Amino acid sequence: SPLSETSAKKKMIFGDRGMTLEEEINESNKYYRSHDIAVIYKKPTPIQIVKVDYPKRSKAVIREAYFRHASTTDYNGVYNGYYVDFEAKETKNKNIFPLKNFHQHQIDHLKMCQKQGGICFVIIKYVELKRYFVTPADEIFLHWDAQKNDGPKSIQLKDIVNSSIEVKSDYNPTLPYINAVQQLIESGKEKK
Amino acid sequence: SPLSETSAKKKMIFGDRGMTLEEEINESNKYYRSHDIAVIYKKPTPIQIVKVDYPKRSKAVIREAYFRHASTTDYNGVYNGYYVDFEAKETKNKNIFPLKNFHQHQIDHLKMCQKQGGICFVIIKYVELKRYFVTPADEIFLHWDAQKNDGPKSIQLKDIVNSSIEVKSDYNPTLPYINAVQQLIESGKEKK
Ligand SMILES: [Mg+2]
Ligand SMILES: [Mg+2]
Repeated sequence: SPLSETSAKKKMIFGDRGMTLEEEINESNKYYRSHDIAVIYKKPTPIQIVKVDYPKRSKAVIREAYFRHASTTDYNGVYNGYYVDFEAKETKNKNIFPLKNFHQHQIDHLKMCQKQGGICFVIIKYVELKRYFVTPADEIFLHWDAQKNDGPKSIQLKDIVNSSIEVKSDYNPTLPYINAVQQLIESGKEKK
Repeated sequence: SPLSETSAKKKMIFGDRGMTLEEEINESNKYYRSHDIAVIYKKPTPIQIVKVDYPKRSKAVIREAYFRHASTTDYNGVYNGYYVDFEAKETKNKNIFPLKNFHQHQIDHLKMCQKQGGICFVIIKYVELKRYFVTPADEIFLHWDAQKNDGPKSIQLKDIVNSSIEVKSDYNPTLPYINAVQQLIESGKEKK
């Protein structure tokens, strides 16, 4: 019945507590900070402020402002001596990850950070599949650059599965992605 | 005469191009990024957005928003495999640096980042002296913690001079502070 369907849906949402990927990462970062595991923050959205009111006996109010294009990625910080930098991306697709989810400046930024010895990756959430992956930036670059040369406009799920470290949603932290970052660091050392 | 005084003042301002410390650092960061030396950005000011208008055929306008207290420092990024994190502080004092220029959350953040192996410091500009220092976070912690135990409310210039690496204002980059960061890293290695 429609009623039980709604109830089932509610239960399903309650399973991952209906959080967006960013909320899950922000909660995890709070956990990591409070346990001295890593210091990672979401960068604030850059805003161009045009007009500010300063009312008497009250705090300043921004009355006209515009969203600006971020020149970097969503998150950065420090983990165990390593600079980490990453984008968080959700998709409702089940079999592919469309490359149009990325902007050129995000790719450029990740490439620059990697060149400086940073640990760079993307956290992808397949919303419908409830699966999470820490995908090394190199894998994204591969497909991004291929697309620029008339390659496919999306990445197949099997390529993400093969190149990434899967992370299972959990409690405390909500999304224990630092374990995957540790694996990325270790596999990077093996290559050298 | 007052006229020649004004003219002298203008010339003086033109000498460092009348830039604030943040502008000098931002310009230097642009240089460092474009020369693949470091990827360091000023973090955007966090804003709490309350009301947004979405006019037809025009971009979104923020109509009500408030400044939020930043929970971190001004700058972070990656240099040669190292995570760097710092505050930029200007003072018009000539002999002291008042500790009230810092907020507890900035000290806490620097301590947490240092614990994770980050390279943490403060860039202090003595506006009247036209002198710039890269001061290790440890030196700031020392005075901050002493102040909490009824110690002095400011740091003497001689203590800054003795504990810091002085940086000379220049062109391309405007403020070549990465050289000082490199020295900080090397002196840190010696200690170990
Ligand atoms: Mg994102
Ligand atoms: Mg500052």
